[in-house]
Amino acid sequence: MTPVHNFLKVSRCLLLCAAACLFAAASALAQTNTLPSWNETASKAAIVAFVEKVTKEGSPDFVPEVERIAVFDNDGTLWTEHPMYVQLAFALDRVRTMAREHPEWKDTQPFKAVLDNDMKALAAAGEKGLLELILATHSGMSSDEFEKIATDWIASARDPKFKKPYTELVYQPMLELLGYLRANGFKTFIVSGGGVEFVRPWAEKVYGIPPEQVIGSTIKTQFEMRGDVPTLLRLPQVDFIDDKVGKPVAINQYIGRRPIAAFGNSDGDLEMLQWTTLGGSTPRFGLIVHHTDAEREYAYDRDSAFGRLDKALDVASINGWTVVDMKADWKQIFPEK
Amino acid sequence: MTPVHNFLKVSRCLLLCAAACLFAAASALAQTNTLPSWNETASKAAIVAFVEKVTKEGSPDFVPEVERIAVFDNDGTLWTEHPMYVQLAFALDRVRTMAREHPEWKDTQPFKAVLDNDMKALAAAGEKGLLELILATHSGMSSDEFEKIATDWIASARDPKFKKPYTELVYQPMLELLGYLRANGFKTFIVSGGGVEFVRPWAEKVYGIPPEQVIGSTIKTQFEMRGDVPTLLRLPQVDFIDDKVGKPVAINQYIGRRPIAAFGNSDGDLEMLQWTTLGGSTPRFGLIVHHTDAEREYAYDRDSAFGRLDKALDVASINGWTVVDMKADWKQIFPEK
Repeated sequence: MTPVHNFLKVSRCLLLCAAACLFAAASALAQTNTLPSWNETASKAAIVAFVEKVTKEGSPDFVPEVERIAVFDNDGTLWTEHPMYVQLAFALDRVRTMAREHPEWKDTQPFKAVLDNDMKALAAAGEKGLLELILATHSGMSSDEFEKIATDWIASARDPKFKKPYTELVYQPMLELLGYLRANGFKTFIVSGGGVEFVRPWAEKVYGIPPEQVIGSTIKTQFEMRGDVPTLLRLPQVDFIDDKVGKPVAINQYIGRRPIAAFGNSDGDLEMLQWTTLGGSTPRFGLIVHHTDAEREYAYDRDSAFGRLDKALDVASINGWTVVDMKADWKQIFPEK
Repeated sequence: MTPVHNFLKVSRCLLLCAAACLFAAASALAQTNTLPSWNETASKAAIVAFVEKVTKEGSPDFVPEVERIAVFDNDGTLWTEHPMYVQLAFALDRVRTMAREHPEWKDTQPFKAVLDNDMKALAAAGEKGLLELILATHSGMSSDEFEKIATDWIASARDPKFKKPYTELVYQPMLELLGYLRANGFKTFIVSGGGVEFVRPWAEKVYGIPPEQVIGSTIKTQFEMRGDVPTLLRLPQVDFIDDKVGKPVAINQYIGRRPIAAFGNSDGDLEMLQWTTLGGSTPRFGLIVHHTDAEREYAYDRDSAFGRLDKALDVASINGWTVVDMKADWKQIFPEK
């Protein structure tokens, strides 16, 4: 063996050793850094065990990357939904802003209730009244115009309790979970009862989820050429309510593939969790965020007006769903500035 | 300098040289290999010029990767649509298969026309008759069952002229275009007038387009728990027709972002091309596949029953859309086995 050959052999060995060391160090670091805002409880362990199982090549539980679809409810799962859904706060603000062009509203319910700040009368208007408010404030403009209205509002509005923009009241542990799943080859989708065009304008910046991976409730739109300008006009008609039994319907319609993981927090997510986790030949994962932290956020479940968690909680353990106890499982609720 | 140091220096230099050579060779090869089934005509030049423009960082025409959305019609744009839409051939075959469970069909139009192979009576049934055939053959089963029916049919059916599976009658130049766009950071979507659940089962294998990037016409589905098994039942009701003015509506609803490139072949794609290319601050690209090759495929436009190209052809040059002349622009129509 010549000195050069010998040197080559030694160099190769050193290089391989260095690479192995680096890899080990990176793995250890990744381990430590996985979901840092989650306490070391059963919830985190269940998430990590599932992800490691489906990403382990050669294992019978391995799921190819294209099939790693994860679906997330938004209100109460990714961001705060109390004291009322953010989109409802938006609709009420819009009624106040639009009132000057609608003098008749000061004598017409449910608009009068909003303008008088009469929450009792508003509650009495029921779901029908709320729908009327939503349609009146969410239609009659182009989709481009609505995007601007929603974007401007979300930038300026403040949550009444925390006095912060709503987009800062997203859950830090869930942001980490979204990132952890994506780092493991998952495609993350939002499947929200909220309006899709209300969520899309900020979902990419806040959650890293592009508009084409946001599914939600829709109102009808109509295409027309205004001179040379193609326009989509938002009509005052509900197209689809993406809640409860609507969620599996929308998942199938938009994604066309059964998710392998679903994350929700209320009975509105029950059918999505069933559709995702029951049946199918590969491992599945279901998780419910249980709001148990009155101090750092809110504590609510069975009697709540927003994000009611009842039936889904009853069947969670039967179905093997992980129930996150926010107070015990999360080190931190919201992102630091 | 020791011999080892010297050797290291020389090795490093050689390695860098080799890497540079390899890179140059790969680039040259990529250049030669771009769209190999396209002749060196204006159509190919327009495609390449657009892609180079929007991917050149620092240029005023640069479009960030997340915004590089390209939408493709399917019938007549990605695969053959003559002598009839493939999905219609599927529906007719399904009527023949299902007839034994529907003895009443032999005396009821439009089913009788199909069973008698009476194309004149079928044509007389018009759009209403076709819709009736589609609903009768595409509903009444679960979405999982329908996927299996569609998958089995597409594997066994043969085109009457070319005697080949329909999935081999996709256009090789368009497959290359899909790959070229994706290699340049585009996300490719199908926006088809056809049923989304008819296209999805094979689109990933044939076009490299995953189900969540296939948009199409839909029928209503209903979620139900059959015992412990969550099921989506296909109902005999049209949900949405993804054609003409429906295409921009669906693009906005599913993708939520204006595409920067659209590819179609008929008046059914006019509004999608308008929505994509007219307005918007970044460069846009529109392309129409004009069927001009009676020998290798078909030649048709203004008077065709399937894939009629009339209005869209009239406005193509005004709007700066590229019109592909299949005969002149494409070296090869279908993939080689």
